[in-house]
Amino acid sequence: MSKDNKMDKLVSFCKRRGFVFQSSEIYEGFAAIYDFGPYGVELANNIKSEWWKSMTQFRDDVVGLDSAIFMSPKIWEASGHVKGFSDPLTECRKCNARLRLDTILEDVGVFADEKMSEEEINEIFDLNKDKIKCPICGSQDFTPGRKFNLLVQSNLGNFTGDWTKEPTYLRGETCQGIYVNYKNVLDSARVKIPFGIAQIGKAFRNEITARQFIFRTREFEQMEMQYFIKPDDYEKYYEEWKDVRWNFYLNLGIKEENLRWHKHENLVFYAKEAYDIEYNFPFGFKELEGIHARGNYDLTQHSNHSGKDLNYFDPVTNEKFIPHIVETSAGVGRAFLAVLSDAYREEGEGDNARTVLKISSKLAPVKIAVFPLLKNKPELVKKAREVFDELKMNWKCEFDDNGNIGKRYRRQDEIGTPYCLTIDFDTLENDEVTVRERDTMTQERINIKDLKDFFNKNIL
Amino acid sequence: MSKDNKMDKLVSFCKRRGFVFQSSEIYEGFAAIYDFGPYGVELANNIKSEWWKSMTQFRDDVVGLDSAIFMSPKIWEASGHVKGFSDPLTECRKCNARLRLDTILEDVGVFADEKMSEEEINEIFDLNKDKIKCPICGSQDFTPGRKFNLLVQSNLGNFTGDWTKEPTYLRGETCQGIYVNYKNVLDSARVKIPFGIAQIGKAFRNEITARQFIFRTREFEQMEMQYFIKPDDYEKYYEEWKDVRWNFYLNLGIKEENLRWHKHENLVFYAKEAYDIEYNFPFGFKELEGIHARGNYDLTQHSNHSGKDLNYFDPVTNEKFIPHIVETSAGVGRAFLAVLSDAYREEGEGDNARTVLKISSKLAPVKIAVFPLLKNKPELVKKAREVFDELKMNWKCEFDDNGNIGKRYRRQDEIGTPYCLTIDFDTLENDEVTVRERDTMTQERINIKDLKDFFNKNIL
Repeated sequence: MSKDNKMDKLVSFCKRRGFVFQSSEIYEGFAAIYDFGPYGVELANNIKSEWWKSMTQFRDDVVGLDSAIFMSPKIWEASGHVKGFSDPLTECRKCNARLRLDTILEDVGVFADEKMSEEEINEIFDLNKDKIKCPICGSQDFTPGRKFNLLVQSNLGNFTGDWTKEPTYLRGETCQGIYVNYKNVLDSARVKIPFGIAQIGKAFRNEITARQFIFRTREFEQMEMQYFIKPDDYEKYYEEWKDVRWNFYLNLGIKEENLRWHKHENLVFYAKEAYDIEYNFPFGFKELEGIHARGNYDLTQHSNHSGKDLNYFDPVTNEKFIPHIVETSAGVGRAFLAVLSDAYREEGEGDNARTVLKISSKLAPVKIAVFPLLKNKPELVKKAREVFDELKMNWKCEFDDNGNIGKRYRRQDEIGTPYCLTIDFDTLENDEVTVRERDTMTQERINIKDLKDFFNKNIL
Repeated sequence: MSKDNKMDKLVSFCKRRGFVFQSSEIYEGFAAIYDFGPYGVELANNIKSEWWKSMTQFRDDVVGLDSAIFMSPKIWEASGHVKGFSDPLTECRKCNARLRLDTILEDVGVFADEKMSEEEINEIFDLNKDKIKCPICGSQDFTPGRKFNLLVQSNLGNFTGDWTKEPTYLRGETCQGIYVNYKNVLDSARVKIPFGIAQIGKAFRNEITARQFIFRTREFEQMEMQYFIKPDDYEKYYEEWKDVRWNFYLNLGIKEENLRWHKHENLVFYAKEAYDIEYNFPFGFKELEGIHARGNYDLTQHSNHSGKDLNYFDPVTNEKFIPHIVETSAGVGRAFLAVLSDAYREEGEGDNARTVLKISSKLAPVKIAVFPLLKNKPELVKKAREVFDELKMNWKCEFDDNGNIGKRYRRQDEIGTPYCLTIDFDTLENDEVTVRERDTMTQERINIKDLKDFFNKNIL
């Protein structure tokens, strides 16, 4: 399978089997937005649940939070997003395509620093205009570049007619909701440094060009954790969190050969260190998660802008300080795409050909499929229903009585269901069912009364 | 506890114990938006998880979906929200308070129909002006009423300078994402009528006045299910869903005497029937969930506006029809507030006084608290850690070694932890721990090796 080919196959698979739909499809779509279908929402929920459990349930130094998408606009001024969070935009005068100026410069080998002013980047743009063509229509006629702010603006809470002068913002990252609740958490949750706050939630960015399916979208979901530490402790905890986060993906079943570290060379001025975990997507190694030592910049900014004392007082050493932060920042959509890309296989030939999602059982959208051998034999259907009704209380199950068993296996293989279970005429005699495993395709007979123990042991 | 008093107590409890924080508090707040703190996010997640399991896992006729907050603006034109989804707004000329005109009319006994035009409602307004006073400052000088659209507008995906002419909308209800994906689900999920699509997600409304804590907020989370049926079947399924939804709240542990039905008398023209489940909040009986027989209005609108055929073809009867819909629409914030209000108790007197959250164990933010009897005895702390590390793999646990056991019990009672478990010196001899139950406050000694069975049986 070539890499291009694989991406096309994944996109088509996602639609066909109800993992991901293009937004507003019956209305000809809505750019850079996607919906999760019936199996997709289960997979996404399972990824989020694994993250949440590993962060908040399995450790006792991290608590959860769910701050709202909307916050005071002052927060985005303090964070620097209102002024500084922008990409340079140009438009092709011929086909009206909107393009990221830094990207089309990069395509001709010219590097534009994100800190450059509008004038600076336009100077470089003018110098290189003879080399640059519109990637859509080939024209060389562009509007001058302008900085376009990525924060999405809205009129929530604004009841005046002309509200663009005082917009409210949809959050551009979830972590700001953690920073501004740090004091609330300190005052209510009995935490002591070092401690973390973990949050899963939507964020929004007005990306000029959104590409690569669900890899970069204007609405996306983040899983972010901010770990509050003593100023001098960052090296120790930074290394610890790098390990923890790397192992998280291995625990999801991602192959280690498809992961690598990428060290950031151009750090923002306050950052001490920044690494990405990259995954080998069909379009190359790209960021899956960022792990950042952010110094005390965030809390210092919010302390200065809000006028509130955000110092931490250490009751043991009597020290007072603004905590430093190690951040881990992952995306649900990217983890989703990495998991699918890693697990998707086409195997066998002819009658034995199958598409199979070799996904960890803890992530599988459906854990167990239950089949009566024949749909027109009421006694088989009844027995199968009984087994289904029992197992569904513990696991996400699917009942399927349609077509021959081979076809039913193929349908479940494709969505990654680890076990299929068939009720046949022998079952009516001896209570044994055929349990078939997805990856090895081996079958064994198990008594109905032993099924719960079997699945408790084999489904993670 | 008087009702006013109770609401004040709940709000203060929510902040003190990390259930709900006012948004952007260090920046003096952001109106009508709230954040869930460490225990709040666990409770909200547990409510959502119970809804999701009861809707999608325990039944095989409902599939899940997670459509994005943003969709094509055409969807909100088709649904009628762009034109019709508005409240009448007036401003006090003296104190600049923004007020809902229909509400202040209601306060003087005048009923303004929501279908009234701006002119019609201003006529009534003028006729009654001598009776109406600003509830904030008492002035009688108001601006004329104007219809204010509740859909929140944004510039997502719009890169022009003057984007208010072509805004995109944050969804005002999650169900539209279900309607426009109905065909995708039909084509991918092998569903047959009758079937449902369930979704949990955020929605946004520019409420003019938001009141009553998390009961009515501008950003809120919905749990909506749309059940697609044959045109003539609505009575049967409507009654069935009324039962299912009523029982859902009983299963959450809500007392039945605090629930009641409210039948809508003024139906929108396409609706066949509409009932609310109301809960007896501290501010009176108010809507917790709506159950609506919506006819085939929604799919018909989207079929007409998109030009796509949204008919269902029944392979058994060869009939072709636009399905009718029974909707169940609940709010996470309202369920959260109902659960807290129902469970919050102040008991005992003097040294025996305690606040206790008598919440179902399936909803409790923490299931088990683990205490070493004394924090300065390493052998007790070590043993307690071992028990904690074992149990946390199955249940959300909390470790607490601070203060005397009585105080630790009180802290856990207040957040509704069903079981506290103390490791003492006897434990080191015989492996038995004291397990104390929240509601009865009874204690029993249980061997560590039997704890899992005990909690498996007693925690839902």
